[in-house]
Amino acid sequence: MVSRRWSEYRLRRRVNFYETDCAGIVHFSWFFRYLEEAEHAMWRSAGLSIAPAAGGVGFPRVNASFDYHRPLRFEDEFEVLVRVAAIGQSSMRYDCVISMGEVRVATGTTTIVCVVKDATGLKSAPFPEDVISRFEVAPPVAS
Amino acid sequence: MVSRRWSEYRLRRRVNFYETDCAGIVHFSWFFRYLEEAEHAMWRSAGLSIAPAAGGVGFPRVNASFDYHRPLRFEDEFEVLVRVAAIGQSSMRYDCVISMGEVRVATGTTTIVCVVKDATGLKSAPFPEDVISRFEVAPPVAS
Amino acid sequence: MVSRRWSEYRLRRRVNFYETDCAGIVHFSWFFRYLEEAEHAMWRSAGLSIAPAAGGVGFPRVNASFDYHRPLRFEDEFEVLVRVAAIGQSSMRYDCVISMGEVRVATGTTTIVCVVKDATGLKSAPFPEDVISRFEVAPPVAS
Amino acid sequence: MVSRRWSEYRLRRRVNFYETDCAGIVHFSWFFRYLEEAEHAMWRSAGLSIAPAAGGVGFPRVNASFDYHRPLRFEDEFEVLVRVAAIGQSSMRYDCVISMGEVRVATGTTTIVCVVKDATGLKSAPFPEDVISRFEVAPPVAS
Repeated sequence: MVSRRWSEYRLRRRVNFYETDCAGIVHFSWFFRYLEEAEHAMWRSAGLSIAPAAGGVGFPRVNASFDYHRPLRFEDEFEVLVRVAAIGQSSMRYDCVISMGEVRVATGTTTIVCVVKDATGLKSAPFPEDVISRFEVAPPVAS
Repeated sequence: MVSRRWSEYRLRRRVNFYETDCAGIVHFSWFFRYLEEAEHAMWRSAGLSIAPAAGGVGFPRVNASFDYHRPLRFEDEFEVLVRVAAIGQSSMRYDCVISMGEVRVATGTTTIVCVVKDATGLKSAPFPEDVISRFEVAPPVAS
Repeated sequence: MVSRRWSEYRLRRRVNFYETDCAGIVHFSWFFRYLEEAEHAMWRSAGLSIAPAAGGVGFPRVNASFDYHRPLRFEDEFEVLVRVAAIGQSSMRYDCVISMGEVRVATGTTTIVCVVKDATGLKSAPFPEDVISRFEVAPPVAS
Repeated sequence: MVSRRWSEYRLRRRVNFYETDCAGIVHFSWFFRYLEEAEHAMWRSAGLSIAPAAGGVGFPRVNASFDYHRPLRFEDEFEVLVRVAAIGQSSMRYDCVISMGEVRVATGTTTIVCVVKDATGLKSAPFPEDVISRFEVAPPVAS
């Protein structure tokens, strides 16, 4: 039996008042939180949680970046598309496109790694099989 | 030997860009964080940390409120005065005044309680002696 | 013709990762943002926006408070019920109950006032008729 | 007469409680705010403000990224070093190193552009002379 694998997730979202700044637009730091919301929603839809689990396995980020094309404003409705871009033994990379209708607002990427805690600290480790088996790399998007 | 007890703390602070909203002023939720910064700075100056400690003792808040008199704007310099208003066996109340020079910007209050974790959950508990012995109620302020 | 008036709004929400703190629970400052999300959603459903409008009319908060009964944790689903508690000529008070199923998590309140900007600063002003006509005080809740 | 030009700025900072998440470490989105704090402090020390100014000149970000090497925890003291990496006619790039003592915690970069608002929207524009004359590219750091 082959169970479904997740390779992307679309989150619909509206800009909250507290996400804006005195330039009248969403503060650039919020885009990283939007990305994370979509990532975690994808994990939930795959039956997983990114929350710190038993066994000391964790998934910290090793990088995150965004390119900003257009501003978002209070009450704007937008979509956060997160896609699995690469899967390694102990790391996974996501790409992210934030858009309003046909307008591309921002594009980003982030990489998480799998670590375990032992007596000497955090060590890189292979993803648990029940985690990594739920994801696959998304096909490329025609641009 | 009587060691010093803390009853108030003054924190100098400047408004960061990301603390403002699209109305051009500091978002009201930030005042609660300013209060907490001053509270934690007072604990540090008393040689204590509010961080989750061994033994399962914690200090959650049971209430928090602010009255807002004047707005704060980007790069404004202000002072956060936190004062110990009441000490009980397992709770402590702080009052807080946020001001710019002679101008009163906001006044707030919050209460923390001491709890311990046991098998059945969180239970109210007396403050550890090495914590509560470091604080005393501040004298009233002439208004 | 009598058009519908709004007196309450229920917002369903899930705790995001970035809303938690190192005590493992939602930071107390977030409850004020949850309240605001529900308030603004009620305004939108009434065809209004709290965004800074033409004519220099604004709705700043003059107070906000919460009592905390139970913690919220990452991925918890909860409801934010905001109710119109009082309407004056130039102020409106909301009460708020945050709950998970039958469990009351927190109860809060906040008051907004109507102001206009003129050459000398902000002045209290009556609510515009097209705003205040959309709201009415909610009936009391049996407790 | 040659006036001083700024090419770097060091900000000392301590982790606030509300900057941590339920993994027990500073949430990755905060590093972007730390970078911005140091950038704005450099502008202030150069006699400038990044706040929206008269004349409709603004400095939005077009990208931002961080690589994360080590976590930060509640009450950790750290340094944010921001350096001017490149200056163009209408853009400026900063590099950023966040460190605790000798330990490199994170390295980032961001680019701002100069824009003016006209009737048709935002347009790229050369930096005002009184802004750009205050900065120069920092010499490379031996690694």
